[in-house]
Amino acid sequence: MQSFTYYTPTKVVFGRGVEAQAGALAKEFGAHKVLVHFGGKSARASGLLDRVAASLKEAGLGVVELGGVVPNPRLSLVRQGIELCKKEGVDFLLAVGGGSVIDSTKAIGYGLANEGDVWDFYDHLRDPAACMPIGCVLTIAAAGSEMSDSSVITNEEGWLKRGCNSNTCRPRFAVMDPELTATLPAYQTACGCTDIMMHTMERYLGRGGSMTLTDRFAVQLVRTVMDCALILKDDPQNYDARAEVMWASSLSHNGLTGCGGSGDWASHQLEHELGGMFDVAHGAGLAAVWGSWARYVLDAGPARFASLLGGLFTLPKEGDDTARALAGIEQMEAFFRSIGMPASLHELGVAPTEEQMREMAEKSCWNGRRLIGGMKRLNAQDALAIYRMAL
Amino acid sequence: MQSFTYYTPTKVVFGRGVEAQAGALAKEFGAHKVLVHFGGKSARASGLLDRVAASLKEAGLGVVELGGVVPNPRLSLVRQGIELCKKEGVDFLLAVGGGSVIDSTKAIGYGLANEGDVWDFYDHLRDPAACMPIGCVLTIAAAGSEMSDSSVITNEEGWLKRGCNSNTCRPRFAVMDPELTATLPAYQTACGCTDIMMHTMERYLGRGGSMTLTDRFAVQLVRTVMDCALILKDDPQNYDARAEVMWASSLSHNGLTGCGGSGDWASHQLEHELGGMFDVAHGAGLAAVWGSWARYVLDAGPARFASLLGGLFTLPKEGDDTARALAGIEQMEAFFRSIGMPASLHELGVAPTEEQMREMAEKSCWNGRRLIGGMKRLNAQDALAIYRMAL
Repeated sequence: MQSFTYYTPTKVVFGRGVEAQAGALAKEFGAHKVLVHFGGKSARASGLLDRVAASLKEAGLGVVELGGVVPNPRLSLVRQGIELCKKEGVDFLLAVGGGSVIDSTKAIGYGLANEGDVWDFYDHLRDPAACMPIGCVLTIAAAGSEMSDSSVITNEEGWLKRGCNSNTCRPRFAVMDPELTATLPAYQTACGCTDIMMHTMERYLGRGGSMTLTDRFAVQLVRTVMDCALILKDDPQNYDARAEVMWASSLSHNGLTGCGGSGDWASHQLEHELGGMFDVAHGAGLAAVWGSWARYVLDAGPARFASLLGGLFTLPKEGDDTARALAGIEQMEAFFRSIGMPASLHELGVAPTEEQMREMAEKSCWNGRRLIGGMKRLNAQDALAIYRMAL
Repeated sequence: MQSFTYYTPTKVVFGRGVEAQAGALAKEFGAHKVLVHFGGKSARASGLLDRVAASLKEAGLGVVELGGVVPNPRLSLVRQGIELCKKEGVDFLLAVGGGSVIDSTKAIGYGLANEGDVWDFYDHLRDPAACMPIGCVLTIAAAGSEMSDSSVITNEEGWLKRGCNSNTCRPRFAVMDPELTATLPAYQTACGCTDIMMHTMERYLGRGGSMTLTDRFAVQLVRTVMDCALILKDDPQNYDARAEVMWASSLSHNGLTGCGGSGDWASHQLEHELGGMFDVAHGAGLAAVWGSWARYVLDAGPARFASLLGGLFTLPKEGDDTARALAGIEQMEAFFRSIGMPASLHELGVAPTEEQMREMAEKSCWNGRRLIGGMKRLNAQDALAIYRMAL
């Protein structure tokens, strides 16, 4: 068991219609003039933006809007947001969207609360000392950014997708209305469920000890998301299943399922390069590489794989942990396919050349500046081998 | 499923030796002059108070000490603490102890941050608008007060034991070193485990819907605490088991195991009156009344009882939910006895007269001002019936 810090200050208000409380909550956390940051047209078309703006105005707050966030959110829009907020005297940032919008909002928050170039924090040249206060109106259950300390931004110069983790960016509040996710396309719902599962599986599949309570929570969280992903495939409007998935999205990435353990995160790093180069959906990219990563590192911790997968699937009773885990990895890939997720790059619709794979592998390890993964420490050669296996 | 608010701002620093970080954390949260509030001699004798004071002084903070908190903490000491802090210009409160010390600290915090008599908040005449910032060095895993919004104080005038809940009193930080609990007597360890179990069971055994994810977490939390209570009976120094129990104490009462449900809490109310009148250990008092309460209200939700108890015990396959739940209630009582807890008032060592039971029953329902319980709404007649069953 490892020592840990657990810090989840975000006030979550969860249920039908809670977006109407956004204004009162922003005011409670000190807002005067609010940037409403969002993605595409759906937030406008559904009337959500109007409802949120009305709630902010009712609380007596000024409102500035900036849309246009895309999946794998871009540094150029972040820079634009920073300039806009400075010009308008914004003192609170409200993300209306999913992980991409929240991550973009966090980056704007870093840019406003610190001197110098915001990309420095994502290029790991220095750590942010502060972040402007943030609230979220969550519309996609996936990234967990509404409670997490993480933010991932893509720099169009070189298509570098990089993450920055800091407790300073944890949102002050998140309003979470499961009904807002009911109209998500099936593919996006499945991507979200995969991402949620992976946030806990990445934490579980590390070395260096664990806690029984955390392990048990982890298995139950992944199990519940899998159950609900299957329900939502046939019944996308199911409120209860949407709610389970939405709450799981937050708990899977706020730290709870990692307390006492160390985690892995190589699959995320491998996917980040895929996302940066091919702009694939994050959850689908994770599903496409996970099985290959798992087989590549399995010998470092067969018991750990077998215990997680044994909590999710019926594994063969005969055989050692490695054999049982391999059967479980196959079942996980079959599950991914059953909800419309890929289990290879081919199924993801991506066919990188050898040269592209080499480039992604080098980038994932910051051109030799770091190793990735916790279950097994991986260098660029390992990353390349996994990309090849995943083809 | 019910809508909910989840708010757990407490920064938890967990592991061996983390009490050395108390000073830096207090400073991080704005302290200049700190009241160190504690209980009896053990905190002094173990050297813990000296280590904490050294950490505060190293961080450049002023220190004022106030000991003497007893189980079922008293209003008179709270009043004394408020006066002392005013006189000394204290701006941060540090509880070094378990639930009683933290609850007493919260009451001092209310008294300092609000005008008028602090008892008003416990007598539910008005709500506290604020609380002075609090940190905790936890030494007993039980009450969960280190992350919760609750505080329970006993007023010696009439021996009224009353609770006050407010988000304003949630501690800013909690340092949690499982080793500090390793020297607790076996009885106190078992009382703590019972209290932790009950905080989740009270949340689970309500009506009005629930969430699958929450239910599954709840079962795993109670199961883990039961496993560890049995380990600690034979091996009280077991670090891992102490750690599981300590972390469970926080998660069981910070709101996590109640998200989406409504809860019951009648057992706690019935115990509060026992504690107020006979000064029994809280966990033991809960164990003494729980089985009687459960049988009394079982017909309001046999399926709910059966699902919780079925996750903890092997219940008979035959029979309806009521029969299966009754078997589970018996097994829970047997478990309590197996860790040295009582399953009746007699086993608790308390023999209230009929008049005393009437008085407790009336007090538990605030002399007709409220009903208690969620599974079944109970009045003073019901409470009296349960006390009689529990004899």
